[in-house]
Amino acid sequence: MRHLEGELGELRRLLLEMSGLVEAGVYHSVQAVVAQDAAQAAQVLSNEVRINRMELEIDAMATRLLALEAPVAADLRLITAAMKINTDLERMGDLAVNIAERALSLMKRKLVRPAIDIPHMASLTENMVRTALDAFVKADVELARVVLVSDDAVDQVRDTINDELIRHMENDPTTIRQCVDLLLVARVLERIADHATNIAEDVVFVIEGVDVRHPAARAANF
Amino acid sequence: MRHLEGELGELRRLLLEMSGLVEAGVYHSVQAVVAQDAAQAAQVLSNEVRINRMELEIDAMATRLLALEAPVAADLRLITAAMKINTDLERMGDLAVNIAERALSLMKRKLVRPAIDIPHMASLTENMVRTALDAFVKADVELARVVLVSDDAVDQVRDTINDELIRHMENDPTTIRQCVDLLLVARVLERIADHATNIAEDVVFVIEGVDVRHPAARAANF
Repeated sequence: MRHLEGELGELRRLLLEMSGLVEAGVYHSVQAVVAQDAAQAAQVLSNEVRINRMELEIDAMATRLLALEAPVAADLRLITAAMKINTDLERMGDLAVNIAERALSLMKRKLVRPAIDIPHMASLTENMVRTALDAFVKADVELARVVLVSDDAVDQVRDTINDELIRHMENDPTTIRQCVDLLLVARVLERIADHATNIAEDVVFVIEGVDVRHPAARAANF
Repeated sequence: MRHLEGELGELRRLLLEMSGLVEAGVYHSVQAVVAQDAAQAAQVLSNEVRINRMELEIDAMATRLLALEAPVAADLRLITAAMKINTDLERMGDLAVNIAERALSLMKRKLVRPAIDIPHMASLTENMVRTALDAFVKADVELARVVLVSDDAVDQVRDTINDELIRHMENDPTTIRQCVDLLLVARVLERIADHATNIAEDVVFVIEGVDVRHPAARAANF
């Protein structure tokens, strides 16, 4: 086995480990919202430093490989994609912290009913994150495409949650603060799903060398 | 002049051009909200394809430089930072589209008063974007640090807007839909400011070779 192959395996392993931490963060932050459980919110906050440390470690490793191995073609695409995926994962970690903080704010008030759609949206989102990283590690372009089509489902659930919460506020203006918090939690989940989509696009690029971002821009004579 | 130096100058020039498009997008999208001007919203939507095309162009150029020039040290840091900045700029462009779409939705209803703080938040944010790119192009670490401290000011304005809008909804529940739209515009501006902060962090890294992300994570024995 080439030396570089071993290093690339290690890079994949680190990203998978980081993605496990991020997925757990999303799960626990949403549980903190739904179960009004401060302990789970605290767990997310304390995990952030581990995720941040992994981001620095992965970035340093990728930069070192670029400098020392001067990779080309598929290896180069893999390493630059790893750097991008790393950034996406770290931002997802930040977003889980964001949800955990909102969970703590929501605990001060009675929970409103529409929270029940949030776990559904969260489980769709966690699935996208897991599948995107699976696609990366297994270099499975079909899995990556599953993520790309899932994004619409998440956007639909977000619209449903939005409409429900607005109606809820209109019917009972005393719940406006809680509803705004839940509305923002749904937005944050949407952003996490967007990051999963970005990762899936990078995976397609690594495997096929084809950039699936912005089909319109490329069709426009690029 | 080395060949690579000329190429790096061109990479910087492309990023600056892209950042100009993104700044204009943020400006026009917010104008579309405040002046309820559909033409400005349409302009933002039609500019998206140009921004997306530039993202692909810059990414292809950076990848080519990595493959053909096998850069090391400061040159390598510059190119990997350019790839990250490119991603941030493209996402800012998407976010401007997001605001433009919300502007179109807001036009269906009477504008509520608290919109007046949105232009203030927008101008702080546009400034951060401009300064971050300036810092990158001039390799000016002091400018980058100006961006890093500006982020708190944006977060403060966001909190003020949030509180005002919630009070507005509580006082007049017939305006809930508009207020929710404005609240989301403020969140999007916050995300754009976050991207500007990411760019400034990358600039410090390029210049000093020092990673200013996550001081806590690095202090924790990394």
